[in-house]
Amino acid sequence: MTEPLSPTERTTLGRLSEKARTDRRELLELLDSALVAHVGLDAGGYPLVLPTAYAVDADGPDRDGTLYFHGSVAAKWLVAARHSKVCVTITEVDGLVAARSGFESSMNYRTAVILGEARVVDDPDERTHALDLMVDHMVPGRAATIRRPTRKELAATQVLAVALWEASLKVRTGGPDDEDDDVADNPWGGHIPLYRVAGAPVGDAGSRGPVPDDVLARARQLGAR
Amino acid sequence: MTEPLSPTERTTLGRLSEKARTDRRELLELLDSALVAHVGLDAGGYPLVLPTAYAVDADGPDRDGTLYFHGSVAAKWLVAARHSKVCVTITEVDGLVAARSGFESSMNYRTAVILGEARVVDDPDERTHALDLMVDHMVPGRAATIRRPTRKELAATQVLAVALWEASLKVRTGGPDDEDDDVADNPWGGHIPLYRVAGAPVGDAGSRGPVPDDVLARARQLGAR
Repeated sequence: MTEPLSPTERTTLGRLSEKARTDRRELLELLDSALVAHVGLDAGGYPLVLPTAYAVDADGPDRDGTLYFHGSVAAKWLVAARHSKVCVTITEVDGLVAARSGFESSMNYRTAVILGEARVVDDPDERTHALDLMVDHMVPGRAATIRRPTRKELAATQVLAVALWEASLKVRTGGPDDEDDDVADNPWGGHIPLYRVAGAPVGDAGSRGPVPDDVLARARQLGAR
Repeated sequence: MTEPLSPTERTTLGRLSEKARTDRRELLELLDSALVAHVGLDAGGYPLVLPTAYAVDADGPDRDGTLYFHGSVAAKWLVAARHSKVCVTITEVDGLVAARSGFESSMNYRTAVILGEARVVDDPDERTHALDLMVDHMVPGRAATIRRPTRKELAATQVLAVALWEASLKVRTGGPDDEDDDVADNPWGGHIPLYRVAGAPVGDAGSRGPVPDDVLARARQLGAR
């Protein structure tokens, strides 16, 4: 939480730099509200991008904090990511910008791009902590209410970590940046805000009794009625 | 629309292959409903993943159809993508799966992974067509209601294309896959459905008069009231 963002040339925005944000709190807010990261790596001569759940520990052991992601030990892409250079990109779409020209048509969004080497998390305590954080990122507080991981499950899971150090954040908000002539010629330009909204929780066939508090609170936080 | 998906080994799912879909229509439906693609490429010794708007022409000139994306001629990552291997990944998050263990905790999602070489679209007619498709992907019908691109705007824009041929689609739906013992021990497991919802369109400072039909229809299609 100490250093501003964009510390290196490759995470310093060239174009549209007015959209760059350097406040680390804004990065953490985006990482908190988004659900999926797109992780890019070299899969052996070609780039591969896969979506994954993730979690953040702003006080984690890596420089400027840690982003964790995980998966099966049998997942080839995760094996390829171990100790390798990765790019973790996290995007929330906030709106459609309906401009008066195609050139100014756009979207409102927040995007974090994090570059780093994927550290393999081997320490048992850190692994458990990271897995709990991932459960709690989806449904806050849930890790404390469900069964603990078994030794077998832990052995079947690999956890990777990336430092939040080499990161950039780009944000677009508001309406179109139309030319004056276009505004004169066309009476309407603007944007359509977009939100993520939850429906009511759906119990599975084995469920009996009420929806637990952690799940209900998460659904309500995401707008379920 | 002829060949099933996953024609090559690297787009054939290894793990969790029960989640693989090979129906090309399902791929096109996802590409139609999603808004942002994450494009991965080799940025010169390290992987880079950036979000971008896109559009699809299922009858486009590339094998099994074409996905287009575009940007400024000054965008370095787009220049790096020209004639290069790229991975275009498109994900929609459909829900949070609240399992009875961390191991089974998951998300519901649809993900398309498209591998290919980014073709530079030079033909003027195809460029204009692709740019119109991109406007219409955000707000259907809008390209016909706004100012046409100028020569200067076209010169400032690069358009890239990727074939929809080497693609995979992975879909998760429904509740958790909990162990019987966990279901016995914990009375509730299930999922929280997630949706993208639009708010009412917001006109910019230059707007006068009603929201145009194309924008209104798109907002309503996305659930605005």
